[in-house]
Amino acid sequence: MNKRIILYILGWVLIIEGLAMQGSTLVGLWYHEQNYIYFLLIGLALIVLGLPIVLVKPKNTNMYRKEGFAATALSWIVLSLMGALPFYLSKTIPSFVDSFFEIVSGFTTTGATILTDIEQLDNCMLFWRSFSHWLGGMGVIVFLLALIPKLGGAQNINLMKAESPGPEVDKSFPSIRKYAVLLYSIYIGLTVAEVILLMCGGMYFFDAVTTAFSTAGTGGFASYNNSIGYFNSYYLQGVIAVFMMLFGINFAFYILIIARKFGKAFRITEIWVYLGIVAVSTIAVAVNIMKIYGNFFDSVHQSFFYVTSIISTTGFAIDNTDKWPEFSKVIIIMLTCIGACAGSTGGGLKISRMMILAKEVKKQFLLIIHPHSVHSIKMDGKKITHDTTRSVSVYLIVYIAITLTSVLLVSLDGHDFTTNFTSVLATLNNVGPGFSKVGAAGNYSIFSTFSKLVLCFDMIAGRLELYPLLLMFMPKAWKKA
Amino acid sequence: MNKRIILYILGWVLIIEGLAMQGSTLVGLWYHEQNYIYFLLIGLALIVLGLPIVLVKPKNTNMYRKEGFAATALSWIVLSLMGALPFYLSKTIPSFVDSFFEIVSGFTTTGATILTDIEQLDNCMLFWRSFSHWLGGMGVIVFLLALIPKLGGAQNINLMKAESPGPEVDKSFPSIRKYAVLLYSIYIGLTVAEVILLMCGGMYFFDAVTTAFSTAGTGGFASYNNSIGYFNSYYLQGVIAVFMMLFGINFAFYILIIARKFGKAFRITEIWVYLGIVAVSTIAVAVNIMKIYGNFFDSVHQSFFYVTSIISTTGFAIDNTDKWPEFSKVIIIMLTCIGACAGSTGGGLKISRMMILAKEVKKQFLLIIHPHSVHSIKMDGKKITHDTTRSVSVYLIVYIAITLTSVLLVSLDGHDFTTNFTSVLATLNNVGPGFSKVGAAGNYSIFSTFSKLVLCFDMIAGRLELYPLLLMFMPKAWKKA
Repeated sequence: MNKRIILYILGWVLIIEGLAMQGSTLVGLWYHEQNYIYFLLIGLALIVLGLPIVLVKPKNTNMYRKEGFAATALSWIVLSLMGALPFYLSKTIPSFVDSFFEIVSGFTTTGATILTDIEQLDNCMLFWRSFSHWLGGMGVIVFLLALIPKLGGAQNINLMKAESPGPEVDKSFPSIRKYAVLLYSIYIGLTVAEVILLMCGGMYFFDAVTTAFSTAGTGGFASYNNSIGYFNSYYLQGVIAVFMMLFGINFAFYILIIARKFGKAFRITEIWVYLGIVAVSTIAVAVNIMKIYGNFFDSVHQSFFYVTSIISTTGFAIDNTDKWPEFSKVIIIMLTCIGACAGSTGGGLKISRMMILAKEVKKQFLLIIHPHSVHSIKMDGKKITHDTTRSVSVYLIVYIAITLTSVLLVSLDGHDFTTNFTSVLATLNNVGPGFSKVGAAGNYSIFSTFSKLVLCFDMIAGRLELYPLLLMFMPKAWKKA
Repeated sequence: MNKRIILYILGWVLIIEGLAMQGSTLVGLWYHEQNYIYFLLIGLALIVLGLPIVLVKPKNTNMYRKEGFAATALSWIVLSLMGALPFYLSKTIPSFVDSFFEIVSGFTTTGATILTDIEQLDNCMLFWRSFSHWLGGMGVIVFLLALIPKLGGAQNINLMKAESPGPEVDKSFPSIRKYAVLLYSIYIGLTVAEVILLMCGGMYFFDAVTTAFSTAGTGGFASYNNSIGYFNSYYLQGVIAVFMMLFGINFAFYILIIARKFGKAFRITEIWVYLGIVAVSTIAVAVNIMKIYGNFFDSVHQSFFYVTSIISTTGFAIDNTDKWPEFSKVIIIMLTCIGACAGSTGGGLKISRMMILAKEVKKQFLLIIHPHSVHSIKMDGKKITHDTTRSVSVYLIVYIAITLTSVLLVSLDGHDFTTNFTSVLATLNNVGPGFSKVGAAGNYSIFSTFSKLVLCFDMIAGRLELYPLLLMFMPKAWKKA
């Protein structure tokens, strides 16, 4: 393990986080909030801490897969430990574990909160919560890759791989740095578009920006206790729903659109499957909740909003879905696990993984019928290697193992099964709300410190797609080759 | 698809079932119950129906994997449709779907009941329920293989594969028929041993026989509303617990013991993992339920009984476990999914599948650390082929897909999530009791006809290990090659 290069990356992460906090400093100053000082001072401290580390570039910039994984996992832990400090030191959140939970939930774009009254928070604190979603959504490492040339030497792809969601990273792009710049440009563009459209609907600038940050990162932190239900407007809720859906789409689509390769863009099967699931789920839920909302239009509105909110793993709410019928709840739980497209800012297992798994199943059945036939698995015309299919299968196994272990540990608190099960799924898939006590009207303050740490683990494991965080606990990974 | 050979096997299945019903005829006559007549007449009708089919042996006895699967799946459906008749025609269970559910639950060794008062049933009916467990436990096809020479021609292994639990069938045995005879001999021997030990504890002959049948098949139908709680004796409950554990062990162990290959028998890793899980779960649950039962001995007794009952997928109960703490419940739910050893009469995913999945995960992590290293997966010194590991991974995917789809469909009835989720797991894994409304004190009468049929599908799919039943719905499987 090349520990020096990992430290170098951590140095950069500290600096970026220190700079990122200055957004909240400005918000605090603008609104005359005394708490701005925490962002200013902690941010400066992080920059001062990071600078000496990055001034000397390591000679050996070799960055193999395990270094990429370790650097990413450690970055996210450091990011969260430091990011919790403004909440904790300002006594906005009196417990450090609670502060840590809140910012982990922010960076991992989960949106699960331990706060019982969000509206009493300072604007600078609200801004920090939403901005953590935005930074975590596309990824802080991807941000570094866009910013710093030759960050991890020639094997930057391994850093990209560790932080990017989905089974495969597009290796065809000539330069990782250009790729990262392009991703962030699209990301910023879409975010700005949402801000403008929200303001056209009468939303205040501050609310529009924080909401757009939370949407873009598919996070789900809102500035009001009733989440998006506060904005009692079909237009605003509709705009947010559409953007949640857009941020759940594979960014490869937008890249192809910019490159004017429209044909290729619209032939990405994953996106059609994603939109298909959204459509079918919206209709199924709408029919099922019609008896609650009385009319077709409201049912579709409610259904479309929550379906896009959950499948994109955002977790915004406009009503208390805990009163919905069981059938709709099960659909929502399934969408929680499925998640968004690979290469989007969303979490979950990802559509493309589900597609590969489905193709594996089909292959197996064909082999039972014709034992000597040969079947290869393809996606969008490209052959999926055996390594990828095995990796996806193993991903599912590890995913289930983490889910079960977490449910077991969290159950020690004695809450009901639905609460335990959906709280683990909602954190591991970076969605946020579950059902029962962690439903759209509940929050995560009910859990013990131990359970909160388990759920923090799940949030980071889910955001980094399991392997990087787990690898940290394997002594073999740290041995010299 | 060689349909003629499938029909031939179905003919034999009808005859065997007709003969099997005569056990209940005798019980009915002995206890002067008028309902004996249904077993006598329906049984005779089945034999008369089956005889003309088996009198002419098909010329083409080719039996490839798909024929083995189709024959097995159809056999189980026919077996259940006919087996439901005595309940239905005697009006013991007034609805046909309920009768079907009850006997599917019997043959698949699930033990989930729709009856609210078991004790009002005639003894001949109780005997039929328990005997269906016994026949379904080792398998009716395996019984045919033991009885009839050259049933499916040279490829009898494909019939065996379709009905035997676990990822692999021991192909080293020289003759499938001898293998099947040996399995049934051990099965009968262990059943008789249990009957004797139960009678030594003062149990009546009839109760001892039905209890032993239900234990041997790892079924769980009891003759009393309080299940095994009726027998208020540490000895009796202890004997049953030990036998549940024994019937969950890979029968390869007993075969090796009989062959005096003790060293090889005790080196089957799966059995040690199984016993290890039993031990750890028993301790964990015992500590957790101590506050309910007050003392260590009772806690261990309760814990050991329910842990062996669930991991062996029997489902006997001695207390209402729905009052247990959530932590214990989650352990029980996990054991429900894990299930017993391959090659036992138990259901679930099977220990050896879990082991193969765990080894796949380990391999993947080693590959991340050392990308160019080569790792092969071994079990008991034998290399596990890539085909097997892929088949096991796909098994897990299909298992999850069936679970989720079933939970979704069952949720239309509007019961709570715990009821829906655990009822599907308890039927798909052939366990019987779940939690909440389908807990040890509840039953399956709460579900709609549609949900009952979904759960029947799950029971048969689980008993036949998913593929045979699913293949029936693929038109490609029925096409001529």
